Amino acid sequence: MRIALDAMGSDAAPLPEVEGAAELSLTDECQIILVGDERKLRSQLSRHRVNGNLSIVHATEVVTMHDNPAVAVRKKKDASLLKALRLVKEGHADACVSAGNTGAVYLAARAILGPIPGVARSAICRLLPTLRKPVLLLDLGANPDCNARHLTEFAEMGSVYSQRALRVSRPRVGLLNIGEEEHKGNQLVKTVHQNLSRCHNINFIGNVEPGAIYEGQADVIVCDGFVGNVFLKTSEAAGKMPAKLFKRELQRSWLSKAGALMCLGAFKRLKNKVDANEYSGGMLLGVNGVAIILHGSCTNRGVINSIRGGMRAVDGDIIEHIRLGIQELRASQEQS
Amino acid sequence: MRIALDAMGSDAAPLPEVEGAAELSLTDECQIILVGDERKLRSQLSRHRVNGNLSIVHATEVVTMHDNPAVAVRKKKDASLLKALRLVKEGHADACVSAGNTGAVYLAARAILGPIPGVARSAICRLLPTLRKPVLLLDLGANPDCNARHLTEFAEMGSVYSQRALRVSRPRVGLLNIGEEEHKGNQLVKTVHQNLSRCHNINFIGNVEPGAIYEGQADVIVCDGFVGNVFLKTSEAAGKMPAKLFKRELQRSWLSKAGALMCLGAFKRLKNKVDANEYSGGMLLGVNGVAIILHGSCTNRGVINSIRGGMRAVDGDIIEHIRLGIQELRASQEQS
Repeated sequence: MRIALDAMGSDAAPLPEVEGAAELSLTDECQIILVGDERKLRSQLSRHRVNGNLSIVHATEVVTMHDNPAVAVRKKKDASLLKALRLVKEGHADACVSAGNTGAVYLAARAILGPIPGVARSAICRLLPTLRKPVLLLDLGANPDCNARHLTEFAEMGSVYSQRALRVSRPRVGLLNIGEEEHKGNQLVKTVHQNLSRCHNINFIGNVEPGAIYEGQADVIVCDGFVGNVFLKTSEAAGKMPAKLFKRELQRSWLSKAGALMCLGAFKRLKNKVDANEYSGGMLLGVNGVAIILHGSCTNRGVINSIRGGMRAVDGDIIEHIRLGIQELRASQEQS
Repeated sequence: MRIALDAMGSDAAPLPEVEGAAELSLTDECQIILVGDERKLRSQLSRHRVNGNLSIVHATEVVTMHDNPAVAVRKKKDASLLKALRLVKEGHADACVSAGNTGAVYLAARAILGPIPGVARSAICRLLPTLRKPVLLLDLGANPDCNARHLTEFAEMGSVYSQRALRVSRPRVGLLNIGEEEHKGNQLVKTVHQNLSRCHNINFIGNVEPGAIYEGQADVIVCDGFVGNVFLKTSEAAGKMPAKLFKRELQRSWLSKAGALMCLGAFKRLKNKVDANEYSGGMLLGVNGVAIILHGSCTNRGVINSIRGGMRAVDGDIIEHIRLGIQELRASQEQS
């Protein structure tokens, strides 16, 4: 297994990338190709114990968070992100991982790896923790403007991914909405609800409200990229607020301070459970290759878990399964 | 001050309504008119100590959560909700409070109280807790489909409300978005961003991400009703999840169990801080009268805080201020 890691993507690049890659090289059966400024990467690597499975591909440019994605993908031909994706395209790597500019990763992956036939848009999907088992949500932000066809395709891809990569036997696919009833929501989700109700290849369970998502009532949740990103970012922010307020409250008496010390183990386990770095970054579904997108503020743990996420996707032959799954869906739709 | 309370609205009606009204009658200077099934209300009231400020107006019908709002408002002429709003319209009450079907409250308030001239839509606004002072968010769900003009008007009404009712001197108005940069988001918010940037009467601070909302970076946040309701419900669900997971983790050892007992006071204070029942329900902005909408699952505390929210709005002469504020805005827009 060979992973092309865009080592210049994250906010603190190349630190978390190099640290994560070095750590992983000691434990996992995997060749990691660090793509980025060779001098910087060598200098960082020298601080870590590494195993021979690491190599470097030099890249002179970097796509930054402030770059216009379309312009950057067109002009920065020697950017680490584009080079990493080309390694996948040309068969030198099996998957690409980047914590860079999401819009640029999306456009570059579409341009370099190419779209899967039968789907108009690609979507970012990721597992999110719930009170039961994690739920796959898509789109998490690649497509702020969607029409009903796009969302229907996201449901198809999400269902296939859940089945084939996550081994969920009949994934329950839900539509993120502000009410359970069929007539609830905006025009877009009302139309998608009708479309998915007629989709016999998908186990569509109807509208799902945020509370029900957190109770684990669905395996796959579909929404447009604007709503999905609001959901994701609100979840992260709202999930952190009680902890911050709680810390303030705990400071108010010596009794609660002492009690808090006794709960430290539970605090730490909770933190791990809700920390995004304990999960793989998002996978871009709908392109001809495995591309994993991490948050720019990721840690080395996030890099490690994302590389492992990429490895699982390759092991599961996800791209081929999605291609076949979509083909079958289209064939059955043409027949009916 | 006279408040018309739809006593049949909540999921457990009329229990929380009667309990809240009875409790409030002992402490606050306020006449409460309970509107609903007289026999049921008298039977419930007999269980509580009350003061003479309570009266009952009989209503034979109830708008339920399963009713189609438009049909219910047209046909159930003797519903408690409609009667309560008519008490405001006819000058027998100063404000109306209901925990009933949100869509029906919206339509009935528009039909009975009438819209404020100069605004096309009404919006539900509410204060939400943040790490600093609470933020006013609108629309929270009345308008799942909005155009740029609607959102611009929400910004205007929210700014006026924040200034005149909440005494914020130059309210910072932000647009809920998935990125800070001007070019981020869907087509709708991009257009609204341009419109608000040209609005000289509003202190527009640009796009605000969910994390920044929770850090208290804005006084007023504007979004369409679909996104606002997703934000609200995700906040509630995501905010509860860590507490639920934490409880599980605490059960794992006797040390953490004992520690948790010592933190009980802090737990309770935190719960109060994030409990929606500790805040007033949402106010419907853009109609000629004060109408407060509570969550159907409200408690007596929620009813009390919402009645008090209605009283503050009446005391602050909010409706007149919004009418004047919008008039001034329109006049200045015509001049420029």
